[in-house]
Amino acid sequence: MKIIETIEEMQSFANQTITEGKHIGIVPTMGYLHDGHMSLVNRARLDNEIVVVSIFVNLAQFSPNEDLSTYPHDLEADKTKCEDSNVDVIFCPNEKEMYPSVPLTWVNVDIITKYLCGINRPNHFKGVTTIVAKLFNIVKPSKSYFGQKDYQQNRVIIKMVEDLNFDVKIITCPIIREKDGLAMSSRNKYLDEKQRKEAVVLNKSLERAKWLIARGETNASKIEFEIKQMINKISGEIDYIEIRNAKNLYKIELIQDDVLIALAVTFDNIRLIDNIIINNKKL
Amino acid sequence: MKIIETIEEMQSFANQTITEGKHIGIVPTMGYLHDGHMSLVNRARLDNEIVVVSIFVNLAQFSPNEDLSTYPHDLEADKTKCEDSNVDVIFCPNEKEMYPSVPLTWVNVDIITKYLCGINRPNHFKGVTTIVAKLFNIVKPSKSYFGQKDYQQNRVIIKMVEDLNFDVKIITCPIIREKDGLAMSSRNKYLDEKQRKEAVVLNKSLERAKWLIARGETNASKIEFEIKQMINKISGEIDYIEIRNAKNLYKIELIQDDVLIALAVTFDNIRLIDNIIINNKKL
Repeated sequence: MKIIETIEEMQSFANQTITEGKHIGIVPTMGYLHDGHMSLVNRARLDNEIVVVSIFVNLAQFSPNEDLSTYPHDLEADKTKCEDSNVDVIFCPNEKEMYPSVPLTWVNVDIITKYLCGINRPNHFKGVTTIVAKLFNIVKPSKSYFGQKDYQQNRVIIKMVEDLNFDVKIITCPIIREKDGLAMSSRNKYLDEKQRKEAVVLNKSLERAKWLIARGETNASKIEFEIKQMINKISGEIDYIEIRNAKNLYKIELIQDDVLIALAVTFDNIRLIDNIIINNKKL
Repeated sequence: MKIIETIEEMQSFANQTITEGKHIGIVPTMGYLHDGHMSLVNRARLDNEIVVVSIFVNLAQFSPNEDLSTYPHDLEADKTKCEDSNVDVIFCPNEKEMYPSVPLTWVNVDIITKYLCGINRPNHFKGVTTIVAKLFNIVKPSKSYFGQKDYQQNRVIIKMVEDLNFDVKIITCPIIREKDGLAMSSRNKYLDEKQRKEAVVLNKSLERAKWLIARGETNASKIEFEIKQMINKISGEIDYIEIRNAKNLYKIELIQDDVLIALAVTFDNIRLIDNIIINNKKL
């Protein structure tokens, strides 16, 4: 497994790989890899001759009041996990390498970045799309892998790829959960014991919503209300609970077609998100 | 020479070319090719195994009040010129191909797009950087060629390439002029006989500025004033006359280092730009 820290070396490796007719799959991460990340790596391993995991905590997608400084990292553990999963390259540039001078250029996706996580994190997606564009230009992948947990991020990146004609296929992989249903996240480790137990309610409320819809409930507000009641019983503070069209992210009132139920809940400063896609036609 | 009209075919051709170890040079144009464009093509021909000329009148870089609808075009003449210059591919997608749905994604460069041409054309550079990003993702060039006439555009694109890590080298080629000194432009054909004669003053005023600096003048305001006086004698209306640092485009008062003198003048609805770079150290 190669460890590459510079853009020049990464591009040169990518060019060489492509000239050899091989395809590169990238799993972009901020490190502190868990089984969710590794499920993306395993999927990438199946699809591509070369698998690159990028590890970079991207300051541009954090707001000043967010947890950039405390975001967990453990590069040695990440390396071991990648080695064990037959990753070919870890690309782990430092901040100076990725932002050598004041950046003036931003890749911005309008409208679908304004709601859900965009309300309380107004510059978040601009940071995400810009770093992903950078990574695509550096690593030159044919396919890129993201987890469904960041569902809105996936839709935003897919729209960016379409609009800017990146020759990269975006693969969205299922949410990986702890045994009790909590969606895996690098931030889970900051939950105290009580919060950790309570956080299970996020997934439970989504399962409850699924059950309601399976039973024939089609009123989105009613479902949102039921979820809200469940989460109000725990100490986490609701950021949003929303039901939207899974494809275009438009707000809906009537459950039909593919539906996204998404939520964000903050325990002290620890912000957790979760979601479920319900394909109403298949119910 | 291949004529390619779809993104899919262009990307597939690019991928094949790169896999063969060949390099692509692109000359992005809006068509109606003149000797200025062809000088870029000739330079690209020297540097690359494969030369692609893109022809696309990019609506996104025109404001509603601008000359999009009357922008000149003559694809047959363009094809002949490209054929004669040993171009390998003309990439000429239509609008529907390049903007199949409402685009939500924009590549925007801040600050250096706000002055000079950015004042009267507030969305112009956002349109330019976005289409250039799209073209880079579609044509996958190693090098891209632009004329110095659009000097600010060149600096903006260079900054975009740096910030987003496009693996593309930007080559800026000298301004090509008519015999009487007028910078070549697809828009020159709209000048009437009187305007055409008057337009020569744009270049003459820049040459005068160069002469003043060679004589030891270091006061930027004084030079701007002299240029203004010359241009005020013709019917064209001054949009701007500015002296700036040629690299970072900062406004300067004292002539030193590399200096850009740039101007924009409008005859009726025909907006002409011209500029000169003066390397003070070499004087």
